[in-house]
Amino acid sequence: MKLAQMTKEELRRRLRLYVVTDERKDTQSLLDTTAAAIQGGATAIQLRRKADLGRHFVDLAYAIRRMTREADVLFFVNDRVDIALLCDADGIHVGQDDLSCMEVKKLFPDALVGVSAAGVEEALAAEQQGADYLGVGAVYPTNSKPDADFTGLEGLSLVTQSVSLPVVAIGGINVERASSVLKAGADGIAVVSAVMSADDPRMASMELIHRMEISGG
Amino acid sequence: MKLAQMTKEELRRRLRLYVVTDERKDTQSLLDTTAAAIQGGATAIQLRRKADLGRHFVDLAYAIRRMTREADVLFFVNDRVDIALLCDADGIHVGQDDLSCMEVKKLFPDALVGVSAAGVEEALAAEQQGADYLGVGAVYPTNSKPDADFTGLEGLSLVTQSVSLPVVAIGGINVERASSVLKAGADGIAVVSAVMSADDPRMASMELIHRMEISGG
Ligand code: NI
Repeated sequence: MKLAQMTKEELRRRLRLYVVTDERKDTQSLLDTTAAAIQGGATAIQLRRKADLGRHFVDLAYAIRRMTREADVLFFVNDRVDIALLCDADGIHVGQDDLSCMEVKKLFPDALVGVSAAGVEEALAAEQQGADYLGVGAVYPTNSKPDADFTGLEGLSLVTQSVSLPVVAIGGINVERASSVLKAGADGIAVVSAVMSADDPRMASMELIHRMEISGG
Repeated sequence: MKLAQMTKEELRRRLRLYVVTDERKDTQSLLDTTAAAIQGGATAIQLRRKADLGRHFVDLAYAIRRMTREADVLFFVNDRVDIALLCDADGIHVGQDDLSCMEVKKLFPDALVGVSAAGVEEALAAEQQGADYLGVGAVYPTNSKPDADFTGLEGLSLVTQSVSLPVVAIGGINVERASSVLKAGADGIAVVSAVMSADDPRMASMELIHRMEISGG
């Protein structure tokens, strides 16, 4: 389901639990964990592979495209527009050091484009460039970016007050922190380890969804 | 200049001295060295960035596209079809662990597609898939792939006898080795360090071209 067929409200709803894959090398384990996340209620999956050569990345993309399509879950590819085009992903996520939103739209006009933003300035720039949603963070410090300046709940709140785009909060979010993040105005949460590294990724997804429901955000 | 406007003989001629960029981080140094290679007679440039995030890669691609277009030199992008599309490269080079030739053609039908082949089996498969030229090697052991099984002059010769595609030999080629490689049937040579690490990259390119001329290959 692409942007053209979706209202902004529907996109907000479909970004509720956005699971980003980790860098594990074991293909079957990655696919099994992703499938469990979807069974537990993940509404969007982002395939992110920084270490891979193209062949492994694209084979994972085809496989996750099949499972997300069956489950009617959004599928985003990180950075690689060529791979997103090949597998007919719903969208692409780019960071500040990747292709620009305009370059992505030029190559794949029908895709939903998400842009990472650390604060209001980057968020407004992304909105101006035509981004469809923002990934805002890191809200909390994370192992993968321990030294990065983090956005914090205050920064997140400033962003959600400044833009009209759907906002997914990212960075160190877990069950305990999910409701604070929604209170700061996020439409959804993006997680890596909270689901991908969970003993039971299906249950971890269910708990995150449940916590967001009872927080009423 | 794309495949549609080029005979196979012209492509062979334009693959004569094929310079692959190295991974240096200094943008200006990379562009200066590439410009010097072109001034010295390089007939094709391949931009190859394994370590970069997309932004730096695509900015380099735009810059090298401008200089290769001015000089009427072929421009190939390694692996990233999205970046090749954005900068309107002449072609894309893929290894055995990248997107397949058919996937590349699907995304960028007008591009010249080169495929790396270590021997006859991979060469025939690439020809069957519709590759436009082959990069065959490593002919000699190299610092970047010291432990790799190398193809050798014998392997190169077997490939050039087995396919009708233009063949560029790669791997440890320098001025002393250029004529042996042409005698083994290659149409051109691909080099990284022989030009990129030369004290005078323009002169290094001129010497390689000169050596190929006097060897009569
Ligand atoms: Ni002479």
